[in-house]
Amino acid sequence: MIIDPGKLSEEAIYKLLVGCVMPRPIAWISTQSNKGKFNLAPFSFFNVASRFPPTLAISISYPTDETKGKKDTLKNIEETRELVVNVVSEELVNNMNISASEFPEDVNEFIAAELDFEESEKVSPPRVSKAKISMECICKEIKSIGVDTLVLAEVINFNISNQVIQNGKVQIEDANVVGRMAGPVYCTTKDIFTMNIPDPTSYMK
Amino acid sequence: MIIDPGKLSEEAIYKLLVGCVMPRPIAWISTQSNKGKFNLAPFSFFNVASRFPPTLAISISYPTDETKGKKDTLKNIEETRELVVNVVSEELVNNMNISASEFPEDVNEFIAAELDFEESEKVSPPRVSKAKISMECICKEIKSIGVDTLVLAEVINFNISNQVIQNGKVQIEDANVVGRMAGPVYCTTKDIFTMNIPDPTSYMK
Repeated sequence: MIIDPGKLSEEAIYKLLVGCVMPRPIAWISTQSNKGKFNLAPFSFFNVASRFPPTLAISISYPTDETKGKKDTLKNIEETRELVVNVVSEELVNNMNISASEFPEDVNEFIAAELDFEESEKVSPPRVSKAKISMECICKEIKSIGVDTLVLAEVINFNISNQVIQNGKVQIEDANVVGRMAGPVYCTTKDIFTMNIPDPTSYMK
Repeated sequence: MIIDPGKLSEEAIYKLLVGCVMPRPIAWISTQSNKGKFNLAPFSFFNVASRFPPTLAISISYPTDETKGKKDTLKNIEETRELVVNVVSEELVNNMNISASEFPEDVNEFIAAELDFEESEKVSPPRVSKAKISMECICKEIKSIGVDTLVLAEVINFNISNQVIQNGKVQIEDANVVGRMAGPVYCTTKDIFTMNIPDPTSYMK
């Protein structure tokens, strides 16, 4: 089936895109407003933008209710240029899902989602205490792309639980992260397999 | 454990990043040089950059052997501004893995990986015949970020098998995509669960 996005509504395109780009990693982002209010929310249009300096890209949309203006996460990043990207392991999915609710600006999602937080080392927004991995970031650039906003953020500090790291590598089974699929669906990362890239000369004819 | 990336080698940072941003969707990208040579290669620093117009972001690194210069995929995108993002379902992982080899420029990865291709509707690079989903794209912007290059590509055509789409939505079980984890590890997306975002008022205290 050939589908021309030029003939679809924004909502129909969104529904297609989330089914065509799966599984997506989740950036569970903590920020702080310039008045010191905390915010925590998950984003799955997220990946690595550069290996060095280590830079993440997160695309942030408008709230479902457009009269509400920008999402608090984006407002806070614009104000303070700081964010923490927490990683969601399976034990934390319920808390993450609560924090995905569109709370009014004055609600602290750490309290709503019953999460403890800890001070970060190098930035003001706190990290999620129970997250096994958090990346403290400085926003390097904010770029409008279509109706959304791409945040490019350099990781200036990795905070990784001793439980999940060994010889400088995150242990996949111990990290036990979840990924986002389409709609309300998530995947675990328990069912894994390994493939080494073959020697190209064996396939040259 | 606190890890300051400023004290690590590029390689050590890369190893950390791929373990901190998981699971990653895979863009299996077909391109064509301005001389008409085909290329096919997988990239997992990939996600949606904007919902509307539908725009993808793919970060492309240098080849492992840096004397080789730019990857063919990036060279071809620069030359023609066109690409097709094919989606990797489980049946195609071995072909995808072969295409991940660093072949010399004159090797056609479709032949090396024993894959049939089909003409695209709106762009010159062909699509992988057996891919259940392919997105035909026009490159809108090429942006250096650190040592890597971010390609922003607008989807101008979705090509989706009738097997995997229903009421405008990709059916997760039928698509059966794989995700990239750290190192040589991949995950399936068979183990899924559903969480609806709760009503925020139930969590406001």
